[in-house]
Amino acid sequence: MMKTSKLRYGIMIRLEITNKPGMLGRVTSAIGKAGGDIGSIDIVGFKDGCIIRDVTITAADHEMEQRIIANVGKINGLRIVNVADRTFMAHQGGKIEIRSKLPLKTRADLSMAYTPGVARVSTAIHENPERAYELTIKKNTIAIVTDGTAVLGLGDIGPRAAMPVMEGKAMLFKAFGGVDAFPICLDTKDPEDIIKAVKWISPGFGGINLEDISAPRCFEIETRLKRELDIPVFHDDQHGTAVVILAGLINALKIVDKRLEEITLVVNGLGAAGMATIRLLLSSGVRKIIGCDRSGALYLGRKENMNPVKEEIATLTNPDRIKGPLVKVIKGADVFLGVSQPDALQAKDIRKMAKDAIVFAMANPIPEIMPEEAQKYARVVATGRSDYHNQINNVLCFPGLFRGVLDCRARDINHDMLLAAAHAIASGVNPSELREDYIIPSIFDRQVQEKVARAVREAAVQSNVARQEHQFFTL
Amino acid sequence: MMKTSKLRYGIMIRLEITNKPGMLGRVTSAIGKAGGDIGSIDIVGFKDGCIIRDVTITAADHEMEQRIIANVGKINGLRIVNVADRTFMAHQGGKIEIRSKLPLKTRADLSMAYTPGVARVSTAIHENPERAYELTIKKNTIAIVTDGTAVLGLGDIGPRAAMPVMEGKAMLFKAFGGVDAFPICLDTKDPEDIIKAVKWISPGFGGINLEDISAPRCFEIETRLKRELDIPVFHDDQHGTAVVILAGLINALKIVDKRLEEITLVVNGLGAAGMATIRLLLSSGVRKIIGCDRSGALYLGRKENMNPVKEEIATLTNPDRIKGPLVKVIKGADVFLGVSQPDALQAKDIRKMAKDAIVFAMANPIPEIMPEEAQKYARVVATGRSDYHNQINNVLCFPGLFRGVLDCRARDINHDMLLAAAHAIASGVNPSELREDYIIPSIFDRQVQEKVARAVREAAVQSNVARQEHQFFTL
Repeated sequence: MMKTSKLRYGIMIRLEITNKPGMLGRVTSAIGKAGGDIGSIDIVGFKDGCIIRDVTITAADHEMEQRIIANVGKINGLRIVNVADRTFMAHQGGKIEIRSKLPLKTRADLSMAYTPGVARVSTAIHENPERAYELTIKKNTIAIVTDGTAVLGLGDIGPRAAMPVMEGKAMLFKAFGGVDAFPICLDTKDPEDIIKAVKWISPGFGGINLEDISAPRCFEIETRLKRELDIPVFHDDQHGTAVVILAGLINALKIVDKRLEEITLVVNGLGAAGMATIRLLLSSGVRKIIGCDRSGALYLGRKENMNPVKEEIATLTNPDRIKGPLVKVIKGADVFLGVSQPDALQAKDIRKMAKDAIVFAMANPIPEIMPEEAQKYARVVATGRSDYHNQINNVLCFPGLFRGVLDCRARDINHDMLLAAAHAIASGVNPSELREDYIIPSIFDRQVQEKVARAVREAAVQSNVARQEHQFFTL
Repeated sequence: MMKTSKLRYGIMIRLEITNKPGMLGRVTSAIGKAGGDIGSIDIVGFKDGCIIRDVTITAADHEMEQRIIANVGKINGLRIVNVADRTFMAHQGGKIEIRSKLPLKTRADLSMAYTPGVARVSTAIHENPERAYELTIKKNTIAIVTDGTAVLGLGDIGPRAAMPVMEGKAMLFKAFGGVDAFPICLDTKDPEDIIKAVKWISPGFGGINLEDISAPRCFEIETRLKRELDIPVFHDDQHGTAVVILAGLINALKIVDKRLEEITLVVNGLGAAGMATIRLLLSSGVRKIIGCDRSGALYLGRKENMNPVKEEIATLTNPDRIKGPLVKVIKGADVFLGVSQPDALQAKDIRKMAKDAIVFAMANPIPEIMPEEAQKYARVVATGRSDYHNQINNVLCFPGLFRGVLDCRARDINHDMLLAAAHAIASGVNPSELREDYIIPSIFDRQVQEKVARAVREAAVQSNVARQEHQFFTL
């Protein structure tokens, strides 16, 4: 634990050093002159008369790191192979591991966990497949599946580069929900292939979390998998985002004393998050939603920049068929939800919104409008960022949601369960504490995850998708 | 750790008990009368006026367990939902879990392991895919892939029922090789589908261990994957078995003072293990091998019960085209290797073998001939069982082999590496200690795994399949 928490700034330099006396001394004094503090020096290997060494160095700041690298680089007879900073050091070898839950020290341990004992357990599952939930990791394990086409704001960086994000997600699942999640990064972008792959690998998993798959492909993949698999499927970029937005909106509306049924709401961005948010808001009672994308307002009959999901959403939103760009559409709106791109709005646009305007500008890392600007005219402002108040963060939803789903062996994640999760998150802020800058609970508030898990489980039981009602504890 | 090691005999009974006074007392005294020792009593849930309880009981022996169950079953107003013995109890919820290697306690931890820090790491891999080996779990993680068609001796029990075995295998990989292995049990038996699935999921893995896939399908799947993937592929049932057999044979031949080049060897069973063993023995210098299956000796030109792999092996073995059943073929042979089925041989058949005969009867759990019988006429006898001397156990090979493979980022597992592993295992028995009943080291001898890892790594470097020569340590 100390390994990463104690480091302020730190780097690890891998050096190829000509094998002659005095070289290491030159390295250490070059580092010392720049102000760096040497940690460990390890021999990594040998190559063509050179020693390969890893030198770990603590520095006061980023500038000092740069000075150290420059000083070391000037030494003759030495080559810098690689420089890793503390984030890169923390990622060495990946961020998750597989651990055994049972000891394997004696022949008796082996004969229980492996042959011959395991044969009876396998036979029991063969005779009654439902027992896989009791006797294998299916009980508590989900797959985080991506094709790497829409990773963070980085776009289509592919399955290998997506791994660090999926590993991070697996860490969050475990830390906040006690869920064992394993990353599966697929080397195909074809929706049919992805559907096949997920179905084929599904026997060992209790659920599937789709992640960072680009729209509109993600819609079909999710719909098909939900229909064709007997384990729950959840696309976090869609529904996780929608749930936390709804949670924040429920609390924001309390502050401005407006009701979901009476507001006019503009959603900018009709990708995965935007579409799912519109659907969840519609089912929560919002009547007037106008979706916008690069082509402006979405309306029934629009021809430009459409896809089947937009066609469908056009029938459900924008009843007055308002047309035009975002900056026009936003006029008079009560709520702006941005799941689009940086700098889509300016303060003068917010000024045109209704009284007590609510602005959720969630483009990451740079919002549609910076909170300092939005606050000039909006009453409640939220973003996706941790360095401002009111962070709309999916981690408030997905770990607790899957905790609830796995605990009752839900076969699906339906609308009722999403609504239950949103209300549970909203209830994480005590009504007496509710303020313009505190509409959403902290991600580190463990009670929120427990509330979400319980609410999701109860909604699953109520809506008849729970396969096990009576397990009110986690083994 | 205590949880399983301390239990001698033990069961957990799940009871649905009518919710009225005195019921629990009746349960506890029924258990006490049978001699059982009550551990914990937990409420699991409620259902239709009943309380569901799990009662954990320690017993002296299996008979006492049966008495306890019988006594409890006689109580009115109570239903036994389920009885789990200690093996089943150990399997509750599966045997492995995903653990985070970094802390996630503060926003700083989060920003390094997840957004925004992770974006730089993903970008670095996107720019140089080889860095996936350094910055993700690919460095130390393999997939254990099965379709559940040939699980232990149970046959085609399907992917769900295969999970406990694959989880056990993952435990062995971690405990004996420090390798993170994750089970992928595929819901398809089509070789093309399996090949596709493995290729699609491969980006996050540093290697693939195929497991319990029936022959002859396993041969094509392995061959194709080895050719089409850039990470190493290993079918343990074939090559793991072959390696440990060769290791045992090397030592057995030292005892009887015969050379690989001069022996006559009969292999009974031409499935995955038999075929791979024949190939490895041929490349080790054995000249006279006769393969046998249900149709008797395999010879060039045989028509009955053939497949493409048998056709190929027929060209490489049985130079004298000997025909007939096993009991005839075995006459005069120096070595018998059984990877087939129980009771294929009797003592009188062993009597017909050459002087100082060697018998490896590895059918599991019941060997081709029991050691007591074989020993009447054979000098060295080995089986797959842990309750006899000379256990031929794959666990001597696969953890250390993959440790070596991952440490040098080998892109393939070739014949040289298999031979190196076999010799490393053989060297695990000190020549001065070598005896008829001690030809193979203990699976709990950690030095053997280290020897295997080092030998495999060196062979990979020598045969140019290592992508990283200089990493002589594991981070």
